[in-house]
Amino acid sequence: MSEAPIFCVDGGGTRSRGRIVLASGETLAEAVAGPCNPSSDLSLAVSSITQLWADIAVAAGFDPQAPSRCRLSIGTAGALHPEIRNAFLSGLPVFAERHVMTDGYAALVGASGGEPAGLLVMGTGTVAHRLFADGISIQRDGWGWVAGDRGSAAWIGRKAVEHALAARDEVVAPDDLSAAVWNDMGGEPDAVRSWLRDARQARFAGIAPLVGDAAEAGNATATGILDHAADHGADLLRSLALEEDEPVFLRGGVAEFLHDRLVRRYGRNFAGSEGDAMHGCFLVATGAAPREVRR
Amino acid sequence: MSEAPIFCVDGGGTRSRGRIVLASGETLAEAVAGPCNPSSDLSLAVSSITQLWADIAVAAGFDPQAPSRCRLSIGTAGALHPEIRNAFLSGLPVFAERHVMTDGYAALVGASGGEPAGLLVMGTGTVAHRLFADGISIQRDGWGWVAGDRGSAAWIGRKAVEHALAARDEVVAPDDLSAAVWNDMGGEPDAVRSWLRDARQARFAGIAPLVGDAAEAGNATATGILDHAADHGADLLRSLALEEDEPVFLRGGVAEFLHDRLVRRYGRNFAGSEGDAMHGCFLVATGAAPREVRR
Repeated sequence: MSEAPIFCVDGGGTRSRGRIVLASGETLAEAVAGPCNPSSDLSLAVSSITQLWADIAVAAGFDPQAPSRCRLSIGTAGALHPEIRNAFLSGLPVFAERHVMTDGYAALVGASGGEPAGLLVMGTGTVAHRLFADGISIQRDGWGWVAGDRGSAAWIGRKAVEHALAARDEVVAPDDLSAAVWNDMGGEPDAVRSWLRDARQARFAGIAPLVGDAAEAGNATATGILDHAADHGADLLRSLALEEDEPVFLRGGVAEFLHDRLVRRYGRNFAGSEGDAMHGCFLVATGAAPREVRR
Repeated sequence: MSEAPIFCVDGGGTRSRGRIVLASGETLAEAVAGPCNPSSDLSLAVSSITQLWADIAVAAGFDPQAPSRCRLSIGTAGALHPEIRNAFLSGLPVFAERHVMTDGYAALVGASGGEPAGLLVMGTGTVAHRLFADGISIQRDGWGWVAGDRGSAAWIGRKAVEHALAARDEVVAPDDLSAAVWNDMGGEPDAVRSWLRDARQARFAGIAPLVGDAAEAGNATATGILDHAADHGADLLRSLALEEDEPVFLRGGVAEFLHDRLVRRYGRNFAGSEGDAMHGCFLVATGAAPREVRR
């Protein structure tokens, strides 16, 4: 079966992308489906990837009822937890082989072609990875929005919400940022209380663009939050302790926005990528990159 | 009906307490039941107070099936939100009168006897109230653990968890506090990820005692977190802008623990109370204290 086509999947928190690639490297089809985060919503993750398979199989001219003619290689959040990984896999169609790794690891080996390197992802969440020459990798942060994911969009958004609430309480001076955030949360106490009661990662991340806007308009609080986020990103990069000749890659909307701040703090430029996370899945499935083994 | 006995209730996040008091002030019975927070768990709040009524009615020699012979006066979190308050009341037995106020307001007027005063509560959450001479009150903070409740047990616990995760990521130096918290969360990455996935207010608040222990053992991070919590409490007190002759009261386990730090920062001593939150409910029901009207 080792020559079977590979169904490469980048399972993400807002959407999932799939690609069917022959062992030779030729791409047959691509498709997009819904979110895949088995640790936060297992059944949604299963249905997203099942739908992604059904769509991409048709696009590639395959029989969707015959998944065993393909190999699955997927990078997704929640892949580290054995129980969650097994429950996720047991809900999916039965492919000939299954390779499961974290989304960050797939992005790292896709970028580096499987060579030793580092990766910082700052998007809705924050996570960093390093692949060593012996094929073993480490992950830093990625602990989730409630007490981790330092510097992420959810982190930035929550800092802004905290500021808006403190301004409402008259313990810090109100400013353009506090006004914009308060209005975005509903503009009056009952609405804000409802907003807060339902607030989770995505909702806080949705506040982050207001911080970017305010910083560009010269707001000091917003600038401070973004500086602090960049400090967290640079700290995480340093904690990877990369060798000077090992490339380091950058991913995610927040990282892109903070690019110049990160370069300034970390003192190094970021490298251009060989490929994306689905390419990383392809490399792992074909053995061109190591399987994910954590230290 | 204005002479009917009053069923006074202090509805709390971990347990609720009830007292049946005659209009003369004489107490007939007391009882305790489960949590009452209509905004976080409406059906539990309804069943706790329904059970509390059943128990206390029997203890007072009343017919539990005849609630309309009593007046209800209750202080509880979530009381400010009209929809939640109405849904909560419509689930309860039908009393002759219903007085609903926030738990903080009940505690404030119970402490001050209905006179102008301020109150800082730092327990699982953080909230402050001030009652003005015209009967109108304000509330500060009480926004909930996700982005508010600054300096509360949940806030303290989350700061400690953030520190433990940053230490695990090798971006801050590990210490006794990070080790204690990491072990309390399960001691290894999969267990910690599960802990974090399920972490809400009560779980973070449960970490706070480790911070108190570490601070007493001289840990600098723990001391810094408690100092920061006390700064928040003092900021909130100052935001009340009390007159010099208006008393200010202190409530909650964290506030008690931070008492000396709060006095040092705020520069005033806290007053002794006339009574508890159930006394406040009694005063509101009898008209001796104003009903809660917010500005």
